[in-house]
Amino acid sequence: MKALEEMSREELLQEKQELLQAYEDYQKRGLKLNMARGKPSLEQLNLSLSMMDVMNSYNGMAAENGTDCRNYGELEGIEEARRLIAEIMDTTPDHVICFGNSSLNVMYDMVARAWSHGVCGSTPWGKLPEVKFLCPVPGYDRHFAITEFFGIEMINIPMTETGPDMDLVEKYVNTDPAVKGIWCVPKFTNPEGIVYSDETVRRFARLTPAAEDFRIFWDNAYSVHYLYEDCKPQIPDLVKECEIAGHPDMVYKFASTSKITFPGSGISGMAVSKKNRDSILEMMKIQTIGPDKVNQLRHVRFLKNAEGVAAQMKKHADILRPKFEMVELVLEQALVSRGIGSFRKPLGGYFIAYHAPQGTAKRIISLAKDCGVTMTEAGAPFPYGKDPEDSVIRIAPSFPPLDELTEAAKIFAICVKIAAIEKML
Amino acid sequence: MKALEEMSREELLQEKQELLQAYEDYQKRGLKLNMARGKPSLEQLNLSLSMMDVMNSYNGMAAENGTDCRNYGELEGIEEARRLIAEIMDTTPDHVICFGNSSLNVMYDMVARAWSHGVCGSTPWGKLPEVKFLCPVPGYDRHFAITEFFGIEMINIPMTETGPDMDLVEKYVNTDPAVKGIWCVPKFTNPEGIVYSDETVRRFARLTPAAEDFRIFWDNAYSVHYLYEDCKPQIPDLVKECEIAGHPDMVYKFASTSKITFPGSGISGMAVSKKNRDSILEMMKIQTIGPDKVNQLRHVRFLKNAEGVAAQMKKHADILRPKFEMVELVLEQALVSRGIGSFRKPLGGYFIAYHAPQGTAKRIISLAKDCGVTMTEAGAPFPYGKDPEDSVIRIAPSFPPLDELTEAAKIFAICVKIAAIEKML
Repeated sequence: MKALEEMSREELLQEKQELLQAYEDYQKRGLKLNMARGKPSLEQLNLSLSMMDVMNSYNGMAAENGTDCRNYGELEGIEEARRLIAEIMDTTPDHVICFGNSSLNVMYDMVARAWSHGVCGSTPWGKLPEVKFLCPVPGYDRHFAITEFFGIEMINIPMTETGPDMDLVEKYVNTDPAVKGIWCVPKFTNPEGIVYSDETVRRFARLTPAAEDFRIFWDNAYSVHYLYEDCKPQIPDLVKECEIAGHPDMVYKFASTSKITFPGSGISGMAVSKKNRDSILEMMKIQTIGPDKVNQLRHVRFLKNAEGVAAQMKKHADILRPKFEMVELVLEQALVSRGIGSFRKPLGGYFIAYHAPQGTAKRIISLAKDCGVTMTEAGAPFPYGKDPEDSVIRIAPSFPPLDELTEAAKIFAICVKIAAIEKML
Repeated sequence: MKALEEMSREELLQEKQELLQAYEDYQKRGLKLNMARGKPSLEQLNLSLSMMDVMNSYNGMAAENGTDCRNYGELEGIEEARRLIAEIMDTTPDHVICFGNSSLNVMYDMVARAWSHGVCGSTPWGKLPEVKFLCPVPGYDRHFAITEFFGIEMINIPMTETGPDMDLVEKYVNTDPAVKGIWCVPKFTNPEGIVYSDETVRRFARLTPAAEDFRIFWDNAYSVHYLYEDCKPQIPDLVKECEIAGHPDMVYKFASTSKITFPGSGISGMAVSKKNRDSILEMMKIQTIGPDKVNQLRHVRFLKNAEGVAAQMKKHADILRPKFEMVELVLEQALVSRGIGSFRKPLGGYFIAYHAPQGTAKRIISLAKDCGVTMTEAGAPFPYGKDPEDSVIRIAPSFPPLDELTEAAKIFAICVKIAAIEKML
């Protein structure tokens, strides 16, 4: 079919008419489809079903150092769980604190404690006249929600093919002492699936922040979440790179098993320098009696080590890949091949970011909604929910079964075309 | 034997000599005993061993509303866990939010969020020139650690047989707008085992705080933790009493299963008014992806309901009672009967508070330590670790096996007598 640009006004009107007819036909079916949530599917949950059997009443509750996992103690997590998380995070266990089921909660706590108590002895952020965070965009809405909650000013940093615009990052971080942090998902960014280049990672490590309490919030959420066995991009370990560059304390690295085992009942971890670690544990001693060690041991017994994790992730990929490829096929054939918008094909992670024609994203989401397809809100991948171009739409293919997803993608494509033609007319 | 008071100087010197001999004999044995930790014993942990079998790969992962407990969602906890926690807390599920494994963490979060964001729209506590908490003493060191961490001024409130001195509580709360909270363990106080009277609870409900954002932190940690089947003191539900008194928002009530199932891997809950609940959930939405629902369902399947909990607590009591009674026997025979100090015999909870002769607690703890018996630090049950009378010693009988505990109690009694005689001479 012709690109929209090449079509006459009459042809556009004609196509719009046909699209509206198709749209109404779908509407009549009263569908309820959802591509909003980066949520693993039932089939994926069942990959970890046997994890429910590895801790039971007859195979022991002791960690390898003899600690009874049921009782109090081991604030930093049990040794073997820290080792497992270290393998997932590409670092060593001495850097790792192992937490409970929500890495988002760990990130929130890092901001909250900096707010009330500062970072390693610095002035509490809540006592400063202004605090700013850099936000590579499009990015993860729940990161931005945390900084917005604390009234931290968020500054958009455009993404490139190799990660955030590092010239801009360096300019802000190295000159403005009010810039205290940056949110990064370095591998398979949410929502574009971009992998930071080695050079980008090393430029992060070589930052010379104007603020001594500046920290890189390095959310390695998709560190092992590949879609293709023969294409597994690697990035340098920022904890080590920061050490080498002489700024060992500059990074907080986060990860979790939420999309390896169970989203709501996984374990999470943070990798940091010794100085950060001591300071964090000193504060955590006040905050909590410690993590759920039984669940930590359960994860170690089930996943075992890096090889176990890789085998598990291959199974996830086998379920996710067809879903991603189907959405990509619809986007490519129905839209991109006709000059309508663009997207990058991700090699891992949980999302596809479709860049719709400028000024149409909100209209598309609204059309989709009225046709029974729930999408992530337009603007969600941007601080304050404001996409300056009203263009980026986050598509989450993981949760729906393939047949529902196919239908949702087709409806989505119709909505995009309607909005695109409306804009041209 | 004679009361110390009735003994001549020669007799005291003679007894001291004998005590030091006994002390040295114990020292030579190089014992390592511990009465410091309010930690359930191995035998108690094993009471919940079969909880490890109720969630497995073949008996379903769905909550009663159909939610798959493994996935994201249900920020407030699953309905049946909220019902179970409500029964433990003596309230109704509509008041309850069900959390993860650490109720201490829930309390910390309530203070931390009030610090950064205020309470239901009030000025954030961190922005106020002064914030004060009332601290009934002796009390729980980890409560005081949270308020100290935030630089909140702590004011000692003496305990009576019926709870905190309510005249003083009313005076402070009703007149000083800087008083924002009070730490209470209303049933089987830590460490004295006192049960607040109905009148005390109702006087709490009838407080008319000078600060609209004043909250009672009601840590009902030992709500079902009785030592005697035939003596189970009950207290009114403060959430309901506050409702009746027209101050529904004034109380945060906390509880957990830490000393019902597993200390490190239980579930916890909070009961609050609708207004508080909405406000808390609104903030939690930013903070976390939600609690570990698999562990919540595990607890429901294991404990079932109030009857299941009561049956479980009877088993705990059967293990704890002989330990408490043995310590009480030693304290009574070796010390109290000779006029040395005093203690209350608790009917539940986890501690015995021994009131040593004024000015001797530190010396006693130090003597015990040098003889291989670890006790809670003197002063720990007081804000800033300062016992104005240097008298209260918290004894935790739960963790050691009975034979070790017996030895530890005997050594403790020797240490008390040495310190008491030293003081008299």
